[in-house]
Amino acid sequence: MSPHEAGADRGSSSALSPGGIRTWQLSAYDTWCGVAHGCTKKIGLKICGKWKEEKEGHFLLLVLFPAFFLELSSSEDHVHCSSGGAEAILGFWEGREDTSRRSTKVLDFHHPHQLLEGMEGFNLELSDNPESLEQILVDCRDTLKYGVRTGHPRFFNQLSTGLDIIGLAGEWLTSTANTNMFTYEIAPVFVLMEQITLRKMREIIGWTDKDGDGIFSPGGAISNMYSIMAARYKYYPEVKTKGMAAVPKLVLFTSEHSHYSIKKAGAALGFGTENVILIKCNERGKIIPADLEAKILDAKQKGYAPLYVNATAGTTVYGAFDPIHEIADICEKYNLWLHVDAAWGGGLLMSSKHRHKLNGIERANSVTWNPHKMMGVLLQCSAILLREKGILQGCNQMCAGYLFQQDKQYDITYDTGDKAIQCGRHVDIFKFWLMWKAKGTVGFETQINKCLELSEYLYNKIKNREEFEMVFKGEPEHTNVCFWYIPPSLRGMPDSEERREKLHRVAPKIKALMMESGTTMVGYQPHADKVNFFRMVVSNPAATKSDIDFLVEEIERLGQDL
Amino acid sequence: MSPHEAGADRGSSSALSPGGIRTWQLSAYDTWCGVAHGCTKKIGLKICGKWKEEKEGHFLLLVLFPAFFLELSSSEDHVHCSSGGAEAILGFWEGREDTSRRSTKVLDFHHPHQLLEGMEGFNLELSDNPESLEQILVDCRDTLKYGVRTGHPRFFNQLSTGLDIIGLAGEWLTSTANTNMFTYEIAPVFVLMEQITLRKMREIIGWTDKDGDGIFSPGGAISNMYSIMAARYKYYPEVKTKGMAAVPKLVLFTSEHSHYSIKKAGAALGFGTENVILIKCNERGKIIPADLEAKILDAKQKGYAPLYVNATAGTTVYGAFDPIHEIADICEKYNLWLHVDAAWGGGLLMSSKHRHKLNGIERANSVTWNPHKMMGVLLQCSAILLREKGILQGCNQMCAGYLFQQDKQYDITYDTGDKAIQCGRHVDIFKFWLMWKAKGTVGFETQINKCLELSEYLYNKIKNREEFEMVFKGEPEHTNVCFWYIPPSLRGMPDSEERREKLHRVAPKIKALMMESGTTMVGYQPHADKVNFFRMVVSNPAATKSDIDFLVEEIERLGQDL
Repeated sequence: MSPHEAGADRGSSSALSPGGIRTWQLSAYDTWCGVAHGCTKKIGLKICGKWKEEKEGHFLLLVLFPAFFLELSSSEDHVHCSSGGAEAILGFWEGREDTSRRSTKVLDFHHPHQLLEGMEGFNLELSDNPESLEQILVDCRDTLKYGVRTGHPRFFNQLSTGLDIIGLAGEWLTSTANTNMFTYEIAPVFVLMEQITLRKMREIIGWTDKDGDGIFSPGGAISNMYSIMAARYKYYPEVKTKGMAAVPKLVLFTSEHSHYSIKKAGAALGFGTENVILIKCNERGKIIPADLEAKILDAKQKGYAPLYVNATAGTTVYGAFDPIHEIADICEKYNLWLHVDAAWGGGLLMSSKHRHKLNGIERANSVTWNPHKMMGVLLQCSAILLREKGILQGCNQMCAGYLFQQDKQYDITYDTGDKAIQCGRHVDIFKFWLMWKAKGTVGFETQINKCLELSEYLYNKIKNREEFEMVFKGEPEHTNVCFWYIPPSLRGMPDSEERREKLHRVAPKIKALMMESGTTMVGYQPHADKVNFFRMVVSNPAATKSDIDFLVEEIERLGQDL
Repeated sequence: MSPHEAGADRGSSSALSPGGIRTWQLSAYDTWCGVAHGCTKKIGLKICGKWKEEKEGHFLLLVLFPAFFLELSSSEDHVHCSSGGAEAILGFWEGREDTSRRSTKVLDFHHPHQLLEGMEGFNLELSDNPESLEQILVDCRDTLKYGVRTGHPRFFNQLSTGLDIIGLAGEWLTSTANTNMFTYEIAPVFVLMEQITLRKMREIIGWTDKDGDGIFSPGGAISNMYSIMAARYKYYPEVKTKGMAAVPKLVLFTSEHSHYSIKKAGAALGFGTENVILIKCNERGKIIPADLEAKILDAKQKGYAPLYVNATAGTTVYGAFDPIHEIADICEKYNLWLHVDAAWGGGLLMSSKHRHKLNGIERANSVTWNPHKMMGVLLQCSAILLREKGILQGCNQMCAGYLFQQDKQYDITYDTGDKAIQCGRHVDIFKFWLMWKAKGTVGFETQINKCLELSEYLYNKIKNREEFEMVFKGEPEHTNVCFWYIPPSLRGMPDSEERREKLHRVAPKIKALMMESGTTMVGYQPHADKVNFFRMVVSNPAATKSDIDFLVEEIERLGQDL
C-alpha cells in the first residue's frame, strides 16, 4: 500500500464528532473560490480546482492561510508538501521539471548599508509612535522581499532548506498556543508529544531500553553541549557543586572535520579549547581510529583524564560518517563517553537504504539529531538523546519551587523542565510531530532517499568533466558534494602556488555574482589545506534534477570569464 | 496626539506603489464576508462589520488567517490587539468588562495517563504510515483543545501570558521565512532588525556609548548564562583556551530571591553551585547590600576570587527590585562585573512612571531583558545586552570557515553568528520589531502601566480582608501580588505549627480544583520559611478588573470548605 493509499483509507474511515471539525468546514465552494482568487491568485485557483476534484475541503482551510504569506513572499511554488493524502491535493506545490515555476529569485541582494539607509519606504528604525497598518503591511512585505527564500528549490546554501507545508501549519499552531515546555501544567499535550517522539527516535537509533532520555534544544550546538555536560556529570557528578577545579584535567576528543560546536562547548563549559583534542581524518573526512587511540594514550600519559569522544555522523562539509563501531570499541576499552553528532546525518536513520552508514550508533551514550536538517522540519528542531535516564535531570536540576512544586495534583515526573539548561523552552515538537503524523515514517524515508539520489546525480554529472574537480574521490555518502569549478583560464594548468591562489578566489567570486543575480545559492569554504571549494548539499525534497542542472549551468555561466 | 491619532495620520499619508500591496487586496467585500462567516463565525462577522466602517480591507487579510487558528483554539476573544491603527479596527478583541466573553475555559485538564491512553480519536503515537488529512485536522484541533490557553485574560500562571495579534502575525511570517540568524547572507533583514532593536534597548537602559553589544537568546536562563561567560572572559580571557583549571577559584554572587538560572549556569559553566554565593534579602525580597559586601570580603579572605554580582530587577516570586546603585557601588569598589537580571522587570524601563525602580541599571555591565514577559511578545524573545562591544565575540568565536568566510562580498561584521553559543539561531526578533513598529514605544508604555494598575487594584482589594493575608507588607513594586487565602477554618487561629501545616495545603488544593474546573490559573509556591502562597502576576494587557475580581471570587469559592 502506497503512502497515499494508506492516507486515503484512513481518511474515509475517520469519524468526526458532531459539532467538531465539520462546524468550521466551508458552507459554499464558490465562496471560497472567490476569495481564493481575490486573495492568493494562482495558488487560490489551484486549490479550488483541486478541491472540487478531491472533496477534501476542510483541509484547504489549513492551506489557504499559509498561502497568504507565501504569496506575499513570492515563494508559493517552492513549498514542499508533506506526503500522505496532502500529496494528492497539493502535489502541484512540489518541485516539478517545469523551470518556469522557478522564476522567482532566491534573493534580492542588498548590502547592509543599503538596507540601513532605507529602501523605498522600508525603514528599519523604531520610533516612539505607532505606525499605520498600511505601513505594517508594507513592512511585512518588504521583510520577505529583501530576505532569502530558504524554501526555494535552488537554495542549496545551508543544511536546513525547504518549507514543508504541514510543518509550517504546525509552527503556526505552535505560535497560536504560545506556551512553554517547562511544565506539564501549561503544556500537557506538547510535553507528551515530546516524550513520545523522543522515545520513537531512541527506538530508531536502536537503543533497546525504553527508559532512555532526551530533550529538544535550541539547535545542534546546544545539543552537543548537553552531551558533554551529561558525560561530565556521569563520571564526575561533584562538578555540579564544586566546579571544574575539583576534578582532574578533563579532555575531550573530536575529529578535525567535526562541527565547531564541540570546541565552543568546551570553551563555555570550562574545559578550554586546548583540552578539546582534534583527531586526524582520512582523505574522506572520517576519523582515523588509530589516531584517536594514540591521542587518548598520549593524554593519559601527560596526566589528563580522557572523558568523552565525539563521532560525527555526517560532517558539515564533506558529509562524512565516522566509523562508529571502531570508535565505540576504543571508548569501551578506555571507559569513555561516546557521543554521536548526527545533527546532519541522523535523518539517514529513517532510510533502510542508507542507515547502515550509521552502524554502531546504538553503542553511543548520546546522540544529537536535528530534524530541522535532513528531515525538513522548520527551524528550530534539534534533539539530544541519551541512552541512560536520569543524567540530564541530575546534571541540571535546581528544583525551583515556583515551577516544580512537589504537591501538584498530577504525576510531576512529567514536569521535565528541570532537565534543561533553559528555564522557559520554546515548543519545537509540534511541527515535527505533525509532519510525522502526516508523512509517516515512510514519508521521511522517501524524501530522504530522494535528496540522496539528487546528490548522486550531481556527482555523476560533474565527476569526469574538465570544468570541475572533486575535492575527494568516490561517491558521496551524504548529500554533500564538494568540488572546485575550474575556469577556462586555469584548466590544464599544473598544480602550483599560483594556481592555488587563483583557484581560491574563484568560488567567492562566483558566489558574489550568484547573490547579485539572485538565481541560486550554494556554500563554499576553504578546508584544512584545500583552497575555497563549493559544498553542495540537498535537503529540500522539492528540489529536482533540473535544479541541479541549473546550479551547474549557473556556476559555469558566472565563472566562465574568471 | 494619542497613539491612535498618530497611526491614523501616518496611514492616510502612506504611499503604496502600484503593483504592491494593493494587488493582493480584496476584490469584493461580500465575498470576504461570506467566507468569514463560513470560516470563522463570530470573528469573521465582526471583522466584516468593522471593515465596512474602517475601509482598512487589506489589513484584514492579515487578521483573518490568524483568526482561523484562534477560532480553532476557542481563544479568539482573548487576543490582545496591538495599539495603533489596529486598535481602531480590532478594539473588540481586547478585554472588556463583558464577562460573557470569558466563557471559554482556560484549560480542559486531563492527567498524563488519560491523554496517553488516547482521547476519542486523538492518538499521540507516531506510526509508519501517513494519517489522513481529516485526522491531521482532528489532531490540530485536539492539540489546542487539551492545551492551556495562555492568551486567556484569566491565565495568570506564568510571567509570560497574552497573545498579541501583531506579534502572532510576526511569528507566522518568521515561520514562513524559515531562516537562521547566523549570517547576514541568509538573514539580511532580520540581522539588521536585531542590531537596531538591541541598540534601542541599550539606549533605553541608559548606556550612552552606541557601540555596546547584545544578542537575542533562547530565554532568560541562557541570557543570564551569557552574562557570566562574558564576565569570566573579560577578567580571565585565558579560560577560553585553558579552562577553569587555569584560573583562580572564581565565585559569583546573587540573592536568595534571584532566579535559579544563575545557579544553573554556575553548574554548567564549571564554577559549581557552591561557588554561587547567595546574598540575604530583606522582607521585601531585595538584596541587603551590607550582606553582599560581607560575603565578598569573606570569600576573598578564604582565597576565592569574586568575579560577578547579579542584581535582580523584578524577582520571580516577589517582583522585587534590588537596589542597583548600592550594588553598583560595591561592584566598583571590588572591581566586579555587575549583571542586572531584568528578565521580568525590564519592561518597566518603557514606562516613565515605573522606570525609576531600575535606577542604576545604566551602571551594569550586562542586562538580561525578556520582551516575552512584561512586553507581551510571543515566546521566545529574550535579550542579553552588554555595555562593552567585543566581549561576546571574543568569548565565543571559533571562526568556522564554512559559515564565516572572510572573503565574502559584503561587510562581514554583520555576520554575528559567532558571538553565540548556538550555531543555528531561531529568528526571535521579527515579532518584537513588528510589535514595536505597530505600538510604538508609547504603546508598550500604555500596556505596561495598565498591568501594574491591575495589580495595584488587586492589592488594594484584598490587603485588608480577613480572607487574605499578604506575604509581605506594602504596595507591590511589580505586578506580583503574593498572598495566602485563609479558609474559614483557619481564620482567627493563632500562628502555630498546626496552622502553618494546614495553610501549606490550602493553595495546592485550590489550584487543583481550579485546574479541574478550568476557569482560571494562578501560581503558588513555598518560599524560604513561608508556606505555600499564591503569586499573582499580570502581564496580559487584555486582562481587566473584572478578571481580577473573578480570580478572587474563584479562590474564595474553591477554598471556602477547606
